[in-house]
Amino acid sequence: MKKIKVGIVGGTGYTGVELLRLLAQHPQAELTAITSRGEAGQRVCDMFPSLRGRVDLLFSDPVQANLKSCDVVFFATPNGIAMQQVRELLDAGVRVIDLAADFRIKDVKVWEKWYGMAHACPDLVDQAVYGLPEVNREKIRTARLIANPGCYPTAVQLGFLPLMEAGLGDENRLIADAKSGVSGAGRKAETHILHAEAADNFKAYGVGGHRHLPEISQGLAMMAGRPIGLTFVPHLTPMIRGIHATLYATLKAEADLQLLFEKRYAGEPFVDILPSGAHPETRTVRGSNLCRIAVHRPQGGDTVVVLSVIDNLVKGAAGQAVHNMNLMFGCPETTGLEQVPLSP
Amino acid sequence: MKKIKVGIVGGTGYTGVELLRLLAQHPQAELTAITSRGEAGQRVCDMFPSLRGRVDLLFSDPVQANLKSCDVVFFATPNGIAMQQVRELLDAGVRVIDLAADFRIKDVKVWEKWYGMAHACPDLVDQAVYGLPEVNREKIRTARLIANPGCYPTAVQLGFLPLMEAGLGDENRLIADAKSGVSGAGRKAETHILHAEAADNFKAYGVGGHRHLPEISQGLAMMAGRPIGLTFVPHLTPMIRGIHATLYATLKAEADLQLLFEKRYAGEPFVDILPSGAHPETRTVRGSNLCRIAVHRPQGGDTVVVLSVIDNLVKGAAGQAVHNMNLMFGCPETTGLEQVPLSP
Amino acid sequence: MKKIKVGIVGGTGYTGVELLRLLAQHPQAELTAITSRGEAGQRVCDMFPSLRGRVDLLFSDPVQANLKSCDVVFFATPNGIAMQQVRELLDAGVRVIDLAADFRIKDVKVWEKWYGMAHACPDLVDQAVYGLPEVNREKIRTARLIANPGCYPTAVQLGFLPLMEAGLGDENRLIADAKSGVSGAGRKAETHILHAEAADNFKAYGVGGHRHLPEISQGLAMMAGRPIGLTFVPHLTPMIRGIHATLYATLKAEADLQLLFEKRYAGEPFVDILPSGAHPETRTVRGSNLCRIAVHRPQGGDTVVVLSVIDNLVKGAAGQAVHNMNLMFGCPETTGLEQVPLSP
Amino acid sequence: MKKIKVGIVGGTGYTGVELLRLLAQHPQAELTAITSRGEAGQRVCDMFPSLRGRVDLLFSDPVQANLKSCDVVFFATPNGIAMQQVRELLDAGVRVIDLAADFRIKDVKVWEKWYGMAHACPDLVDQAVYGLPEVNREKIRTARLIANPGCYPTAVQLGFLPLMEAGLGDENRLIADAKSGVSGAGRKAETHILHAEAADNFKAYGVGGHRHLPEISQGLAMMAGRPIGLTFVPHLTPMIRGIHATLYATLKAEADLQLLFEKRYAGEPFVDILPSGAHPETRTVRGSNLCRIAVHRPQGGDTVVVLSVIDNLVKGAAGQAVHNMNLMFGCPETTGLEQVPLSP
Repeated sequence: MKKIKVGIVGGTGYTGVELLRLLAQHPQAELTAITSRGEAGQRVCDMFPSLRGRVDLLFSDPVQANLKSCDVVFFATPNGIAMQQVRELLDAGVRVIDLAADFRIKDVKVWEKWYGMAHACPDLVDQAVYGLPEVNREKIRTARLIANPGCYPTAVQLGFLPLMEAGLGDENRLIADAKSGVSGAGRKAETHILHAEAADNFKAYGVGGHRHLPEISQGLAMMAGRPIGLTFVPHLTPMIRGIHATLYATLKAEADLQLLFEKRYAGEPFVDILPSGAHPETRTVRGSNLCRIAVHRPQGGDTVVVLSVIDNLVKGAAGQAVHNMNLMFGCPETTGLEQVPLSP
Repeated sequence: MKKIKVGIVGGTGYTGVELLRLLAQHPQAELTAITSRGEAGQRVCDMFPSLRGRVDLLFSDPVQANLKSCDVVFFATPNGIAMQQVRELLDAGVRVIDLAADFRIKDVKVWEKWYGMAHACPDLVDQAVYGLPEVNREKIRTARLIANPGCYPTAVQLGFLPLMEAGLGDENRLIADAKSGVSGAGRKAETHILHAEAADNFKAYGVGGHRHLPEISQGLAMMAGRPIGLTFVPHLTPMIRGIHATLYATLKAEADLQLLFEKRYAGEPFVDILPSGAHPETRTVRGSNLCRIAVHRPQGGDTVVVLSVIDNLVKGAAGQAVHNMNLMFGCPETTGLEQVPLSP
Repeated sequence: MKKIKVGIVGGTGYTGVELLRLLAQHPQAELTAITSRGEAGQRVCDMFPSLRGRVDLLFSDPVQANLKSCDVVFFATPNGIAMQQVRELLDAGVRVIDLAADFRIKDVKVWEKWYGMAHACPDLVDQAVYGLPEVNREKIRTARLIANPGCYPTAVQLGFLPLMEAGLGDENRLIADAKSGVSGAGRKAETHILHAEAADNFKAYGVGGHRHLPEISQGLAMMAGRPIGLTFVPHLTPMIRGIHATLYATLKAEADLQLLFEKRYAGEPFVDILPSGAHPETRTVRGSNLCRIAVHRPQGGDTVVVLSVIDNLVKGAAGQAVHNMNLMFGCPETTGLEQVPLSP
Repeated sequence: MKKIKVGIVGGTGYTGVELLRLLAQHPQAELTAITSRGEAGQRVCDMFPSLRGRVDLLFSDPVQANLKSCDVVFFATPNGIAMQQVRELLDAGVRVIDLAADFRIKDVKVWEKWYGMAHACPDLVDQAVYGLPEVNREKIRTARLIANPGCYPTAVQLGFLPLMEAGLGDENRLIADAKSGVSGAGRKAETHILHAEAADNFKAYGVGGHRHLPEISQGLAMMAGRPIGLTFVPHLTPMIRGIHATLYATLKAEADLQLLFEKRYAGEPFVDILPSGAHPETRTVRGSNLCRIAVHRPQGGDTVVVLSVIDNLVKGAAGQAVHNMNLMFGCPETTGLEQVPLSP
């Protein structure tokens, strides 16, 4: 099989280095270019010594990199960058996977409100496929432009999905209490995520409104076939990787929830429904593309509690992007994504 | 002022060493005995070197320690111990503060179900005062026996209190999503709380039912004046100290919640209502007896989110116990409890 | 190629689960049995949920497991177990890799002094090959019994090796100041390695004498061709995985140390000599079988400082054991050991 | 007793907030001004919520703050700031304690080489007293200008001091292998000290040369009465606070080292010599002004290993500065510095 020629735009953040880790082990991918305006000319493995001996590329200047010769280009850039550059690549026949938020929200007005900028290409938003394979597998295969889901939205949507599709949960009062490791905040030099600030500390943030709220709401509404009401509270927890979403819904009807979840995800290579009564731990997915889920009904009441864990950098970002690539290029879905979680 | 003669039963766990830290700095307390069956004869500071130069006591045998000459005895023992020994002390005129759960639940049948043993002295349960000063201040002053609240119950009850008393939240669907540092599990040699297991990891536990659920429910019901429905999900987060409770309720009527909370806790020395829009961090109470609370209404909807943080070993255990002692013996409430939080 | 039939004795500790992680991804290994007296009948992945979907074995009773049908058996047991069971396996033609210390020290008297027990089979100690491939590659290929090196000894010996072989460092005053993550203490329920004890804390231990001292001394003496004098101080640092050894030696003669190290390790698949002036970080080898080394001469003086990092569970235990297996069975050395380090 | 009027210049870093924590609890200090160019007008406790209810000051503009009315001014500024401003304060009769490095090195040429700038007031360097009370207690009492020691230099000098003064260690080959928590790097928005980079990681840095080397060397040489040769290797360890120095020296003569250390520090309120064979842990001094030290002779040989731990922000910075203030103003030395270490 001919190798897939891969380019990466903006590879100096955590999703970038994680893409490199995964692609370096992907038997069908050929990494041809990685661009960074600020780091052009530097060896990638000088910035990320964990890649010494495995990635020999230099960061190249975005202008000079011949991205149009790639089969697929990943954008691991801040929000608002991909929308400036995607059209030219698409027109050249290159397929694009955007790990940022530019193409995730179908209602451009909503996007513009939450992201605080005008959208550069609303028409491409229409074309973009939301890259959650458990929902959009077939569309992803033929997509030219993928909007790779956010980390919180992946964990929360996969946890609510069977309930929403089955119409079993009260859609008006959904609660998602989510906890993320600090790498979720990115590799930015900001005081509040310093080790001396974030270690041995726990806090909520963005309770008044977080950009992942409209993304999650859009997804849940599509699953439910009607508008939903969601309270989403993200928290920062002192670990490097991992998201734990604790989801609450009120049951509208009786059902065997364990069976419901197991059936819905039967055959899904990256979703693991734990036995009844279990509590998934974030470390059991560390470094892997897995989402592990457990369903509870405390005291047998009508409140459902779903526990959903992912590695925010893999299933919540780079791993899901590679999964999308596999689907787009006809590789077996798990190609390059079979890492066993690193535990302890 | 004459010093308060203090005894501690069972001082080898985290609440015990924390009591010692606080009492060693308390100007009115005179630490006279600390007992431990297993460690009798050992110097306290050999087990806890942080106390070198500050605590010169030896652990003494419970049988031989002359606890009856104390003014007050703290029980920092596992559940089920205090109820065996309290009557004798009370009869001798010693006042008792139990940091375990033996006297927290008024309904003895409920207690016996959750704690899996027969209660040794149901009549004393009646006499015991639940030691949450913000609720029971006057009763505490004259109490002979204090049931010191659990760590989660303290954070959750203080967060819900103004809403319950004002009848503003729907009592049928309260949710408490709580996160605790690992010291909350105690100083027990168990595999799941090893550093290599609990660091860089996040998990829920006890979703099916946790012993703090009936304690919290009892407290909230008393505040509300009617039965309540609560879903309580505790989590383990990789920090040493700290509890962060994220509380959800549906509003039944309009109200200025910020004002409500500020008024309810005006004058409370250990409850700090943050400005509107703030997010309390556990490290801002580390080592102190403070509870910091913020109130949110995301998107202006009818869901209230209350964020409540404490240090589980201080306000959630030893500090609250010392606060109770201060009330019982007429000391200014903040005596020995004015430590500024250690941050970073 | 026919698969290698692999058995594991004692798989409930960290080296056991790490062996499982690596062997589950090894294309030439067929995991046939894993024994545990205490856990017989339990599914491996119920104890280690990170292996769900990848390891379907049950723990089997050591007596009933048909280990003699294996090609190779790994002992991931406490010290003193392998020496009781190895002879029978060897006699049956099974090759053995012991990850514990039973066969590491050639002088049985020294071993018995440090390990506090009589050795069960001194004759096998003679036969055993010390499994440090960078030193004993050829002997390993044909060995029947491998003594897999300890974690500290691996990091320290690889760091000193070029100096010792070249006779450049003063052998009388070597210093190894080593720091280990907490998983190095094993998966044992002990108080001092609880998260609440070991997190946000740093301490030395065993300064008076640690069991890895005679192992390291034996190795360095063989490299130097003469007795050596070593001060070895291990420390516990609050991380899960990783060893950082900081090594000090006094130069006896001038030399291009950078060149010396690069030449000695040229072609070694798992030793990476960093550029002059670099500082290896433990996270750059996390989850991988790599040892990264940097050599310094502070202020250009005659003190050499070597910095050597490994993942204690991989290159310091299970990964090196798999490397030995690869050598013994004629697989390419890096088979199953090409994981890219997980960073961040 | 009249209160000491205290000013702080530059209070937005970790030494600043730690000074505030200690001074807020100091019965003889009256905090009158804290300046910050960037934060003028902001409430201190909005930046540091741990101080809510305890520090009511606003940051004031350095130009407008009436620092000349203070009795003492602490500089918690980056290197190179104090030397620009100190003369005016001294001329006004204000006493100054500089927590940065401007006045620590007596040889101005050496200072200028290591700090990369010209010194603004070499004459004041002569006047400045190095504020290590265990060495310079009497000079500190009458000093107008204190050079408060660095964090590594405090831990290392106190550990070597008895050996150097007694002439027992070979001064030519001293080794200080030191490990610091991440707060030692300051509250600066830099990538390498992000939680996701520094947690679960260990590394050496500055092996080629660190600014604390000349400071330590100067101090040890004065103790020894002759030049010394020191190799100093600092490391970053994933904890918030704490320094652990592991010190190596070769004995030149026999001596009872335990007795030597105990005698030298008898009566020192902040130095604790542990019993023979002990290993001090950084958490046993967390939040306190203590230095705990243990002395070892591994295997009874001629290598001495000294283990010395401090809290880098207290004994290594703000606490030692307050100790100096106490000496300068005739307060009992431990005033405001009696915090019991926070453990766990």
